[in-house]
Amino acid sequence: MNIPKLGLPRVVIIGGGFAGLKLAKTIDSRQYQVVLFDKNNYHTFQPLMYQVATAGLEPDSIAYPIRKVFKNKKNFHFRMASVEQIDDQAQTIHTSIGSLQYDYLVMATGANSNFFGMKNVERYSVPMKNLVESLDLRSIILQNFEKALNTSDIKEQESLMNFVIVGAGATGVELAGALAELKHHILPKDYPDLDIRRMQIHIIEAAPKVLANMSEQASSKSLKFLKKLGINIWVNTQVKDYDGYTVSTNHQDFHAHTLIWAAGVKGQPVAGLKTPLVRGNRVEVDEFCAVKGYDNVYALGDVAAIINENTPKGHAMLASVAAQQGAYLGKIFNKKAKNKQLKPFVYKDKGTMATIGRNLAVVDLPKFKFSGFFAWMAWMFVHLMLLVDFRSRMVVFINWAWSYVNYDKSIRLIIRKPLKSAPKKDELIDELKLPIPDKEKELA
Amino acid sequence: MNIPKLGLPRVVIIGGGFAGLKLAKTIDSRQYQVVLFDKNNYHTFQPLMYQVATAGLEPDSIAYPIRKVFKNKKNFHFRMASVEQIDDQAQTIHTSIGSLQYDYLVMATGANSNFFGMKNVERYSVPMKNLVESLDLRSIILQNFEKALNTSDIKEQESLMNFVIVGAGATGVELAGALAELKHHILPKDYPDLDIRRMQIHIIEAAPKVLANMSEQASSKSLKFLKKLGINIWVNTQVKDYDGYTVSTNHQDFHAHTLIWAAGVKGQPVAGLKTPLVRGNRVEVDEFCAVKGYDNVYALGDVAAIINENTPKGHAMLASVAAQQGAYLGKIFNKKAKNKQLKPFVYKDKGTMATIGRNLAVVDLPKFKFSGFFAWMAWMFVHLMLLVDFRSRMVVFINWAWSYVNYDKSIRLIIRKPLKSAPKKDELIDELKLPIPDKEKELA
Repeated sequence: MNIPKLGLPRVVIIGGGFAGLKLAKTIDSRQYQVVLFDKNNYHTFQPLMYQVATAGLEPDSIAYPIRKVFKNKKNFHFRMASVEQIDDQAQTIHTSIGSLQYDYLVMATGANSNFFGMKNVERYSVPMKNLVESLDLRSIILQNFEKALNTSDIKEQESLMNFVIVGAGATGVELAGALAELKHHILPKDYPDLDIRRMQIHIIEAAPKVLANMSEQASSKSLKFLKKLGINIWVNTQVKDYDGYTVSTNHQDFHAHTLIWAAGVKGQPVAGLKTPLVRGNRVEVDEFCAVKGYDNVYALGDVAAIINENTPKGHAMLASVAAQQGAYLGKIFNKKAKNKQLKPFVYKDKGTMATIGRNLAVVDLPKFKFSGFFAWMAWMFVHLMLLVDFRSRMVVFINWAWSYVNYDKSIRLIIRKPLKSAPKKDELIDELKLPIPDKEKELA
Repeated sequence: MNIPKLGLPRVVIIGGGFAGLKLAKTIDSRQYQVVLFDKNNYHTFQPLMYQVATAGLEPDSIAYPIRKVFKNKKNFHFRMASVEQIDDQAQTIHTSIGSLQYDYLVMATGANSNFFGMKNVERYSVPMKNLVESLDLRSIILQNFEKALNTSDIKEQESLMNFVIVGAGATGVELAGALAELKHHILPKDYPDLDIRRMQIHIIEAAPKVLANMSEQASSKSLKFLKKLGINIWVNTQVKDYDGYTVSTNHQDFHAHTLIWAAGVKGQPVAGLKTPLVRGNRVEVDEFCAVKGYDNVYALGDVAAIINENTPKGHAMLASVAAQQGAYLGKIFNKKAKNKQLKPFVYKDKGTMATIGRNLAVVDLPKFKFSGFFAWMAWMFVHLMLLVDFRSRMVVFINWAWSYVNYDKSIRLIIRKPLKSAPKKDELIDELKLPIPDKEKELA
């Protein structure tokens, strides 16, 4: 790999998410050479991904070129590559574009969908953990309605217009709300030949309530908001299986061409460290974010777990935790270079929020909880300000203002052909008319 | 197909480009039932596609959902499907979603790239005739620089940073100008480890001048602008072959990983009509846009040719011709319903324009020609106004204003994996190190 050797210690960061980006920004590049790896050449603002999936925002509004962030940073190198293996003895990582030695290694590789071992669900459901998946989901949602036009079988039509979302966390709830807005304001105009009233949105949640990580007030308010939008909530319900047509749970079955998986995530560490993984597929780190058993390997964000009496399961997998850890570790490196004393990481909870629909949001601040129109305004303001640059903020603001005034979502283009389950379903139902059991056998 | 039978004559339109869209808008749906087919669910504003390819605009800014255009139109049906065959005896079209009878058929299927029979060029070059190809081109351009970082072979690096554009029409010239802006203002900051001065942009043109369809003044001015931006122009030069690495012409060879094809287009008619095709793979139509030999089949835009003493080769394949023909045919249908007299189609030339870079554009109006800053302002104003809705206009305006002030193009994300040639090249050069001749044999 063409990375020059400098007289500085080399910090290799794997992952350009909230943690990796913040760390690379904070670290003093007069003291360290920084090499950042990511599979993509952009950073994704994940909290707004559901709006890409529901035709509210362009993907480019919530993705930001990593090279642009660091265009004036010295001794900094970005490489678009996937890191495949760590060799902790040789202090080397192996990547898709070659190998590289490190003095310090930081794993900030985030999390991906956790299907809890259900192979069929993994195969036929639609995840939404990155930008490409969000775009695919947008295509799938819109294609379902195009397909529904081409069948006169009412059951088949309804199955195409049924959307089952697994998981009532922020992602599931926000996605359901956005789908409900499509249902109420856009789809009836786009598809006058379909009876959109028959479109159903279901949320299936294993826990006894929605937004279980937020306050009791936020949870009950958001349940009210969801019901107001006509969304069906099924708590205490666990998905057992899915064959592309029927979602089986511990209570009842749902017939739906689309199962959206927003139920759980697990860390996705790079292989090669000797430290055993803990709950959630995470790497255990100490209170200075150093991986247990190493003094030159760190882990941050979703892939890392600081386990102590305050956080027995590690911190929640949140963007805010990742960003704070990234900034913290940057300061640790800078202090280390000056031999200053280090303090352990403490997470500052600045509050959590979720939006369900227009004028409908819930906000938990450490000392104050509120919901409704002002919560929704606060949600929009905070998310606009969190976007990386002024251009994105302006573009997102225009899209939101346009949607609000016109009850419209403009970005309803089917650009990608979905890569996963959908084509299989086509073959089965529309063309080959194969019975489903054959398919199940094949999977088993 | 679930299209209701009404007591009205049914007009089936194939293609939602400038011609098809304008026709469907103009036609009186109290008099006719209109069924519009397109492979995509969106209309593409092709004149700005090169800005998507060069990271200046989001794809969503220049694509517009077709259903949204017609949300209030009665007796109108859109179907996302590809039309595969016309049966003129049974007055039926066969599509990917079933068959449909027509009373009137309008073919507005546009054009695609014409490689003049050069199979290797078709296989290894990159076209830019639709939105997906534009996005692929963006990914390819940016990936080339990521790859150039990973090799220390100077020749290989230069080959990755060489961009050869075939065709000095508006598309080729505008694309070259946008690449030059990337070279001068953005890539040196994004890739400090590369010597971007070694990036080369070539335009190869078979004709003796650039912008051959515009005035002498526009042609010579734009040549001056292109040279000012450091672009190499090779007129009177014909591409003979391309193997993914070397562009062979009648004069000299160019070593480049990327050959962008903007050299020629040909009509892409649907099969099944008995009328033989004319030059450019177009369907010959009379002065009322009716296909020769039919009184209920029409063709519009790039796929159609009105051949007479004024237009011996048919009209130029321009968006403005297509849009005017669409509007014209709509009026013809409306007049026909009222048994009014019909006048033949006459194209009103409102002028042509091309932009080469910031402050550099050329405009030919019927009575007045100008270039430079004011031409550039005019170009921007006209293109903004041609966009379908206010939201797109605002978003495009912000992106342009941002670029202008900051010498920046923000959308430089590698989102799609390019589907065509690029992976092949990877295999050959980076991994397998196969000699190129083997590849050529395989192709032969």
